[in-house]
Amino acid sequence: MILDKVNYPSDLKNLSLDELNTLADEMRDLIIKKVNTTGGHMGPNLGILEATIALHYVFNCPVDKIVFDVSHQCYPHKILTGRKEGFTNPEKYTFYTGYTAPEESEYDLFKVGHTSTSVSLATGVAKARDLKGEKHNVIALIGDGSLSGGEAFEGLDNAADLDSNIIILVNDNDMSIAENQGGIYKNLKELRETNGNAQTNLFKSIGFEYFYIGEGNNIEKLIETFKKVKDINHPVVVHMHTTKGHGLKPAEENKEFFHYIMPGALDEKPAASTTQKETYDSITTDYILKKAAQDPTILAITPATPGAYGFTKEFREKLGKQYTDVGIAEEHAVAYASALAKCGAKPILAIMSSFVQRTYDQLSQDLALNNSPITMLVYWGGISGADATHLGSFDMSLIGNIPNIVYLAPTNKEEYLKMLDWSVEQTDYPVAVRVPFRPLESTGIADDTDYSKLNKFKIEENGKDVAILGLGNFFRLGKEVKAELKNKLGIDATLINPKFISGIDEELLESLKSNHKVVITLEDGILNGGFGEKVTRFYGNSDMKVLNFGSKKEFTDRVPLSELYERYHLTKELIVSDIEKCL
Amino acid sequence: MILDKVNYPSDLKNLSLDELNTLADEMRDLIIKKVNTTGGHMGPNLGILEATIALHYVFNCPVDKIVFDVSHQCYPHKILTGRKEGFTNPEKYTFYTGYTAPEESEYDLFKVGHTSTSVSLATGVAKARDLKGEKHNVIALIGDGSLSGGEAFEGLDNAADLDSNIIILVNDNDMSIAENQGGIYKNLKELRETNGNAQTNLFKSIGFEYFYIGEGNNIEKLIETFKKVKDINHPVVVHMHTTKGHGLKPAEENKEFFHYIMPGALDEKPAASTTQKETYDSITTDYILKKAAQDPTILAITPATPGAYGFTKEFREKLGKQYTDVGIAEEHAVAYASALAKCGAKPILAIMSSFVQRTYDQLSQDLALNNSPITMLVYWGGISGADATHLGSFDMSLIGNIPNIVYLAPTNKEEYLKMLDWSVEQTDYPVAVRVPFRPLESTGIADDTDYSKLNKFKIEENGKDVAILGLGNFFRLGKEVKAELKNKLGIDATLINPKFISGIDEELLESLKSNHKVVITLEDGILNGGFGEKVTRFYGNSDMKVLNFGSKKEFTDRVPLSELYERYHLTKELIVSDIEKCL
Repeated sequence: MILDKVNYPSDLKNLSLDELNTLADEMRDLIIKKVNTTGGHMGPNLGILEATIALHYVFNCPVDKIVFDVSHQCYPHKILTGRKEGFTNPEKYTFYTGYTAPEESEYDLFKVGHTSTSVSLATGVAKARDLKGEKHNVIALIGDGSLSGGEAFEGLDNAADLDSNIIILVNDNDMSIAENQGGIYKNLKELRETNGNAQTNLFKSIGFEYFYIGEGNNIEKLIETFKKVKDINHPVVVHMHTTKGHGLKPAEENKEFFHYIMPGALDEKPAASTTQKETYDSITTDYILKKAAQDPTILAITPATPGAYGFTKEFREKLGKQYTDVGIAEEHAVAYASALAKCGAKPILAIMSSFVQRTYDQLSQDLALNNSPITMLVYWGGISGADATHLGSFDMSLIGNIPNIVYLAPTNKEEYLKMLDWSVEQTDYPVAVRVPFRPLESTGIADDTDYSKLNKFKIEENGKDVAILGLGNFFRLGKEVKAELKNKLGIDATLINPKFISGIDEELLESLKSNHKVVITLEDGILNGGFGEKVTRFYGNSDMKVLNFGSKKEFTDRVPLSELYERYHLTKELIVSDIEKCL
Repeated sequence: MILDKVNYPSDLKNLSLDELNTLADEMRDLIIKKVNTTGGHMGPNLGILEATIALHYVFNCPVDKIVFDVSHQCYPHKILTGRKEGFTNPEKYTFYTGYTAPEESEYDLFKVGHTSTSVSLATGVAKARDLKGEKHNVIALIGDGSLSGGEAFEGLDNAADLDSNIIILVNDNDMSIAENQGGIYKNLKELRETNGNAQTNLFKSIGFEYFYIGEGNNIEKLIETFKKVKDINHPVVVHMHTTKGHGLKPAEENKEFFHYIMPGALDEKPAASTTQKETYDSITTDYILKKAAQDPTILAITPATPGAYGFTKEFREKLGKQYTDVGIAEEHAVAYASALAKCGAKPILAIMSSFVQRTYDQLSQDLALNNSPITMLVYWGGISGADATHLGSFDMSLIGNIPNIVYLAPTNKEEYLKMLDWSVEQTDYPVAVRVPFRPLESTGIADDTDYSKLNKFKIEENGKDVAILGLGNFFRLGKEVKAELKNKLGIDATLINPKFISGIDEELLESLKSNHKVVITLEDGILNGGFGEKVTRFYGNSDMKVLNFGSKKEFTDRVPLSELYERYHLTKELIVSDIEKCL
């Protein structure tokens, strides 16, 4: 194995082209085997393999700096920068994160996981170099899909103004997570089809010198061009055409599926046609399809991650003109939805909790200030063992403190569907619904709540002394706490389903004062700025004791959920113990 | 006067070209007179005057829809859409807002005041039209300066994909608020210099058909092109070259100064050279200049609004390469600063409270997650009588709930300078400082606090029974409350200067329990998610009563500050009365 003697980029320098190609094959096998075992980003890493080898062959990292975008194409880079055991040794498969991580290696500059940031970051790296009078290359590696995000454009616009070395390496595999959406992709296509010679050229129009590599999976060609731009004294774009999933036939053929796979995806036989179990995803897509067929003004919108919500290709095709994937462009998605609603259409915007924060100003100004009646479905919101870059803990604190937006937290199928339909049909408020991030539960009884009466909490079970406000995902935990209180302390607690994240039911809270001593709030997200603090503020001038349970203000990085629940006292035992201290 | 017979766009249709030109002169006089009386956006409105007349002559609003960007160029539009008395009658000068406002007129679609939103909004308007099977024109009017914002690019990218009518009217006056910054402006210049014929063309590369109007202040030429694109069935860009401040010589000559003027700007004689009074702006620029001269890695950064911080042309020139105006690109500004700090430079980013929210994801991911030691100065933060689009009440709730960022609230000159210098020199945290939004106060005694000891509140005056936490701008109010408590109730209250917005001093709060019954928090911003709620949460399980004072979660629109202070109980009398009820 060539790889046996390669641990760091310096080990590449004396390899022949043949050896480099063999190395690529060896690395490809490792990546396929590992990703198929652990799950992870398959297509992006296979597509960038040869370019990574060529980069580390030509440039001198860590003196030269590579800034990755999103960094879900950093596996080959990790193999070549001291971390290959994370790929060769199955016991170490999960030792390194799937993203760049400065704490792992001096070859990684930033912890990243959201898209479209690399050019801005690289511009800062280059400017710091210039201020300090240093000399080295700065390379931003950005995929074509990430180019649609506004921050990428802001970065390009400014990078082009830099009077010194910066190399923007555009990895064009003609795919975002799903298909690319947007006008610039026609230009990229034109450039690919003309071997970079089309008259119309996005990158030149922003002010870059432009280089094109047609064979972006050919190490020899890559080296040739990288050598040309190395040590260049002005901003350049190197546009290379790669194949997503290169070298793995199923991944080349089904690019969307193999963007990110679950463990064993390569081994699986086609699933037998069994009755599909209902999930929140499936009842959402069913609802949208049915509604859209009845009402031509229904429009489903996603910013580039349709797969995360079960918006399959079939679903998208069925919706036709009633579906817009805006690309990785959350800001646009919100403003676009706001205008649609303002003009009488019924937009349903699906977005992940972690990405909601990419569009705060638009939520506030374009949407809330204009009070446009859109429906926003927030997926994957909750405390989790995810990477620090993809936490779902912040959305309630963010959305809940913006005026005018009604943010709802359903706890079961019937509530969810009722809230969704109410939101779609009403015209008074921007509404967000936090799609339960749990297995689907059903009461079997249709919800007949009138959600236009805002901020009405529901008492599920009347009791005394202790009142439990179990919000959304944590209503189930509230039930457990109630049972535990009965078992351990003989207390018949009141159990409340708040349903509204963005406001409190002052009348109900007031009424609790008569026969309750302690109120506890349970929320599946950060306490700071969250739901519980509003309840506590309400009781600030009273004798009521209030305990808030949720996560701390911190970035956690792949910490197991059970450990987090212990840390935050989010188990029935710890909660009851905390309550006991208060009584 | 031609204007006497013009109240609505329909009144323009039968006017001759001569009459339209006379009308433009009449409107120009009105705008100059009014803006010089009330203050407001002079240059942008004079530059767009002829184009507005031509638009309303050719198109049929309100059936056709014009979506304004930022909307500080909407005065001529207001004159022509039923609101001319706001310009002809000095008593009505302040009756209409300086921005588009749907509540004023059906000719205004959105309430806007932040930039770079028009194309996204217009795309939604066009899509709603298509879904509903209607036919009309949709026009986004966007300035060249606003093009640098990421949302504008996201919008353009998607608008170009629309298979129907949308007209992007680019008002290119070769200026942002200050000079334009960024690579795309070289292309706009090239296009202007070639009468739109340059081979490299940003708009074509995004996928638009392209039209150029060299004489953007010539009604005849404007009408000619607008007629060509009216009812067009695909996305087009009309790029028109206008003169900012057109028809007012001082405004044409000093475009930056006349972008937005204070009342009487045209009348003023050059100020005699008197000793300048110190302000927070002046001590900041003095500090930066001095520091930058000593340390080549100091870099001041602004996103396009240098004037708001007293970053004058002279200041910018003195800093030279140690200053970056990134253009209207707050997302890039934060990521850029983060990377600079990560690489050993010392970036000082100045930003307005209202615009901080344009970059939440970058604050969280690019900055806080990477824990880069930048200094961010947040200006104009506080409850105010501003337009709903420019409130400064949300920054503490936003920044204060992001992990890792240290957010400081100085209360006087010495504290501010000490915090600023500590932040610039330390390498442990991203630090934001809320520049006091008040007249400068000085103790005359250098602050020797060690701010690396995080979340240490300062007891300014020891007392008992009641403790007052007066944060930042409201420390002064805290002092007044203390005096009032003594006068009215004979209480010697404890007065505390928290200094830290982003964390609480648990030890100090704990110690208050021994001889205090009530704690009050005063903060110049929204209560929801703010500082006070953290204090209240801390005391949730204790007998301490806590009252939080700050603003409600709402968008207020030009409500006088005194009225807001009454509404939120932010006067010493109302606060003491609330405290009394608690005792």
